[in-house]
Amino acid sequence: MTSSVSNDWRTAGIVDTRDSPYARLKSMPVGSVEMADGFWKPRMEANAEASIPALHDLLEEHGVMDNFRRLIGSKQAERLGPRFTDSDLYKWLEAAALALQSYDLPQLRQSVDRVTAEIAAAQQPDGYLHTWFVGELTDTRFDTIDAGHSHELYCAGHLMQAAVARYRADGDEALLDVACRFADLLVSEFGPGGRTDTDSHPEIEMALVELYRATGRQDYLDLAASLLARPQAAFGFAPIAERRHLVGHCVRSGYLCCGGADYYAETGDEKMLANLEHLWDDLIAGKIYITGGVGAHYRDEEFGEPYELPNLRAYAETCAQIAHFMWGWRMLLITGEARFADVMETIIYNGFLSGVSLAGTEYFYSNPLAANTDSASTHPSAEGGWQRQAWWPCTCCPPNVERTIASLPGYLFTTSAEGIWVHFYDACEADLGLEDGTPVQLQVETAYPWEEDVKITLNPAAGADFALMLRIPTWAEGATVLVNGEPAAESPKTGAYLALQRTWQPGDTVELHLPMPVRFTQSHPYVADNHGCVAIQRGPVVYCFEDVDNPEMPVRDLHLADDRLAAEHWQVEHQAELLGGVTVLRGEGLRPTLSLRDGPLYRPATIRQTTSWQRVPVCAIPYYAWANRGASAMRVWVPVLRSATTT
Amino acid sequence: MTSSVSNDWRTAGIVDTRDSPYARLKSMPVGSVEMADGFWKPRMEANAEASIPALHDLLEEHGVMDNFRRLIGSKQAERLGPRFTDSDLYKWLEAAALALQSYDLPQLRQSVDRVTAEIAAAQQPDGYLHTWFVGELTDTRFDTIDAGHSHELYCAGHLMQAAVARYRADGDEALLDVACRFADLLVSEFGPGGRTDTDSHPEIEMALVELYRATGRQDYLDLAASLLARPQAAFGFAPIAERRHLVGHCVRSGYLCCGGADYYAETGDEKMLANLEHLWDDLIAGKIYITGGVGAHYRDEEFGEPYELPNLRAYAETCAQIAHFMWGWRMLLITGEARFADVMETIIYNGFLSGVSLAGTEYFYSNPLAANTDSASTHPSAEGGWQRQAWWPCTCCPPNVERTIASLPGYLFTTSAEGIWVHFYDACEADLGLEDGTPVQLQVETAYPWEEDVKITLNPAAGADFALMLRIPTWAEGATVLVNGEPAAESPKTGAYLALQRTWQPGDTVELHLPMPVRFTQSHPYVADNHGCVAIQRGPVVYCFEDVDNPEMPVRDLHLADDRLAAEHWQVEHQAELLGGVTVLRGEGLRPTLSLRDGPLYRPATIRQTTSWQRVPVCAIPYYAWANRGASAMRVWVPVLRSATTT
Repeated sequence: MTSSVSNDWRTAGIVDTRDSPYARLKSMPVGSVEMADGFWKPRMEANAEASIPALHDLLEEHGVMDNFRRLIGSKQAERLGPRFTDSDLYKWLEAAALALQSYDLPQLRQSVDRVTAEIAAAQQPDGYLHTWFVGELTDTRFDTIDAGHSHELYCAGHLMQAAVARYRADGDEALLDVACRFADLLVSEFGPGGRTDTDSHPEIEMALVELYRATGRQDYLDLAASLLARPQAAFGFAPIAERRHLVGHCVRSGYLCCGGADYYAETGDEKMLANLEHLWDDLIAGKIYITGGVGAHYRDEEFGEPYELPNLRAYAETCAQIAHFMWGWRMLLITGEARFADVMETIIYNGFLSGVSLAGTEYFYSNPLAANTDSASTHPSAEGGWQRQAWWPCTCCPPNVERTIASLPGYLFTTSAEGIWVHFYDACEADLGLEDGTPVQLQVETAYPWEEDVKITLNPAAGADFALMLRIPTWAEGATVLVNGEPAAESPKTGAYLALQRTWQPGDTVELHLPMPVRFTQSHPYVADNHGCVAIQRGPVVYCFEDVDNPEMPVRDLHLADDRLAAEHWQVEHQAELLGGVTVLRGEGLRPTLSLRDGPLYRPATIRQTTSWQRVPVCAIPYYAWANRGASAMRVWVPVLRSATTT
Repeated sequence: MTSSVSNDWRTAGIVDTRDSPYARLKSMPVGSVEMADGFWKPRMEANAEASIPALHDLLEEHGVMDNFRRLIGSKQAERLGPRFTDSDLYKWLEAAALALQSYDLPQLRQSVDRVTAEIAAAQQPDGYLHTWFVGELTDTRFDTIDAGHSHELYCAGHLMQAAVARYRADGDEALLDVACRFADLLVSEFGPGGRTDTDSHPEIEMALVELYRATGRQDYLDLAASLLARPQAAFGFAPIAERRHLVGHCVRSGYLCCGGADYYAETGDEKMLANLEHLWDDLIAGKIYITGGVGAHYRDEEFGEPYELPNLRAYAETCAQIAHFMWGWRMLLITGEARFADVMETIIYNGFLSGVSLAGTEYFYSNPLAANTDSASTHPSAEGGWQRQAWWPCTCCPPNVERTIASLPGYLFTTSAEGIWVHFYDACEADLGLEDGTPVQLQVETAYPWEEDVKITLNPAAGADFALMLRIPTWAEGATVLVNGEPAAESPKTGAYLALQRTWQPGDTVELHLPMPVRFTQSHPYVADNHGCVAIQRGPVVYCFEDVDNPEMPVRDLHLADDRLAAEHWQVEHQAELLGGVTVLRGEGLRPTLSLRDGPLYRPATIRQTTSWQRVPVCAIPYYAWANRGASAMRVWVPVLRSATTT
């Protein structure tokens, strides 16, 4: 055993800030929260029972495990898959380990142990571990990391994250030993006096900080700090603490910001935090879709310009949403500011969740905000209409989705000097502890995000004086709170945490009411694709129109009348049998009496639109649930007509 | 000498249809038309005197010629540049040879001869010629052509085109011999009983047909036919005669359509022509920008879906515009239908010409319809605002621009059984010949595209009975024609050729009046980026607004009032000193009293726009001339406000 574990694995959360001097909030272990019958429980179960086992078999089928077996002589095989494919297995391992933190799954644990043993056996004597740059390619180790080709540190980072997740599942240190041996080699290769470049695909930075947290090894933190200070030379990008804009590959950028935030949480480097806040502002000001999707460019999977947010051609890679969800979490842990949780919630219910099918076994790589079925697009998902796929040649997104869903219980609550924070609302029971060690059980009852009420029952071991910090989402205008049935003295403000400071007694209740009128949202006028359009939201959920629900017209022709852009004109209807249970919105739309399809590409502007418009019933579904009923055109943003022009 | 030349090089045009049984129109040699003081003459001179010499030096500097010298032992060098870089030299040779068809340029001729000698010396004994797959890589010849990597047949095609152009400049057959020797090898390798794949980058097809036309070698035509019938396996694309939509890489698609059209002109294969017309309709219905730009996707340089035409992120590669100009020419030669010439004219004055600076020595690769200067875009041209560059790592566009400009005199006129066709209007003198051999001199006097009048003086050797076919552009509503000062009996119809059938006498004149009111154009409603926007055109010229001309506001904030969308509200003003001489349009725009920049990315739709609008003077310049005065934001499509909302 080479690792020197520094603290109790049982109480470590997702991003373990228990001992982080510059993190305001302390994360809670995944296993401390048991999901009850709410929104996420069936998804977590599908993840553990269907998604994770299915991906295991697909990774086998595509030879990802065989790459390791080749090295240990148990299988003759070519190098298979892209050069970062080891990371897909590591992310799967992390997902499995996180699932083991919530569920007792003996067969999955067996798979994890078997895979772990094969990985350990494939590790080189000096600790190196990457199945491509071995054998006759040993001499080329690390040669191309800065040009984005080798992904060796990237894969190492995912190995470390998997190892830490496994250790926190049951204290098993087998994979942690492997990770530490590789980390030790990296320290000697890239540490003081060693190489001065870094991997152009970040990931290692946050992984090293977390490995430091798990093991107490200062040299891992120091290496993370050193790597973070290096420019990404191949792209001409400055170190993240000096970068002025979010540029380049969105996932790489997001992971690097995670590493910077983790580094700040341990060191308090103010320059880093200030720049991360600046970059977050850049994201929010013009580079994030209403769904929480991130990434406008297909080519090189890059950020676009500010306000460049095409709908049909949104890239919005599922992994990019995850990276920015992870970054938001770290910023939240550091600051305790609700604006980060607001964005995390937008991502998780929309642009993240659209990345996986309701069954849990098919995935989107890109998550567009509009889709046509008649297209001659060459996007692989667009053949025969956009459809999720079980496997992608670059299969980064599926295991990333799986590890994220498996980790969700760890995001609901944190503690701080003030008390207990509730960031996200779902039905669950939680065994938490105040910083002074007082155990507090919480029960949350809610049908969020479909219903407006959240009831929290507190059960501290005995009367305890602390603040219950409740996030009031920015959209929740008019939120109210009852404590033990009486209006709270404290008045909720949106986009902030409401601090309910009490001596809480066992059985005390808090009833939070978060109004969810149907909302109509427009874009900044610089977003060219959304000129004259609105999107529909309710609570944290972004809605879309799919052809399958709107037989009156193709959704491509659908318009909305401006005299119907008010909540009272829309009917909120929960359909338990539809799409795994969704609340749909029914209202009135406008259809042209002649399809808009006809007519030339360019025409005199002086010709008035000759079509007339009819009011027709329309139905919107949650965006995340689209493309679960076969090929169907879809729109999030819908053009608005002035009512004067309608018949 | 291995080539067997079949016909007189002096009378061959751009696409030599003199003997093509299925081409209605017969092309005229470049040298038969001498440009006078009009729009294109200064550009042709800059091309011959500045562009072509400058690119010669840049090709030297970047080692493109050294790739050949390495093979003949006159220079030690690595393989330099991308695998298709031989083609850049061939395209430069073609440009130079075409310039020699118009101008006496002894120094350029010397350069051409020297480069030709080096190319000839580098040819392998069996006729193979590609500077990458030689030496130790000889065994890999043609191995990857179908996967898009090697470009061997693509380069061969450009060699053939250069050879034919040189031969037609002065009858020199040195390069033609080289081309034929390579073509002979290709016939034996890819002809009957040989390989059955083809290059995934088309070009060879049209080149082989033209080489057939120059040499009469039937096996070249047969090989073209055979290659055209092969699928592009790597992309899953059907042969062009069976392809249902324009898909994939736009330049490849355009060149393949050219090859298909050339093949039809020789063989009359009706299936081919029918499908080319179908694909042309696909282009016009939803895949071409108002500028004639082609290509929506940066990734893989591909067509987008129908109506997917982003402005800021338009790819519209200069080469793609050229490919579709070339395709349009072939369709025009086959059919004599004005719709093809209309599109060619749109391309050449707009999306093509924007690809080169006024000086002639800097080039755009992409030609967007909107640009910002404050962007954090990662596009190489966008650093510090969009700027043309003298050299690109993939330098396909610069020599392509040069060969196109050098060839322009060859596009103005054709003949047919009916008589003489005038396709494009510019000041020039032409020595043409009717099909019966009667010489006809034409003089064209015009300041087109700035002015509305075109005067043509005819000088047949003696009185001659034929039709003068004049293209009436689709935009030229109200066109009129005088013959010898009297209204013609024939009435001009737009989008068609007007046939003036007469016994023409020496000195007869035709005065064509093509009204050019300022026009305001809107898009098909499915073009998301152009919702609520108009573009401005006058004659064949598309206009844009650049920041530098509009100090009242950033053009990003500029709107137009719908009560000003009429020609009478705009002033047409020629400025001889501006941008090499342009006609600008002055009118009234709207600026917001508060910049639109402020405010959140997403906002409630129920909040009315609180800004008010002021009428301000604005000035539009021809789109092709943008980005010639340093970094400047630009817009082609501008949003329209209802006048009721303005103050």
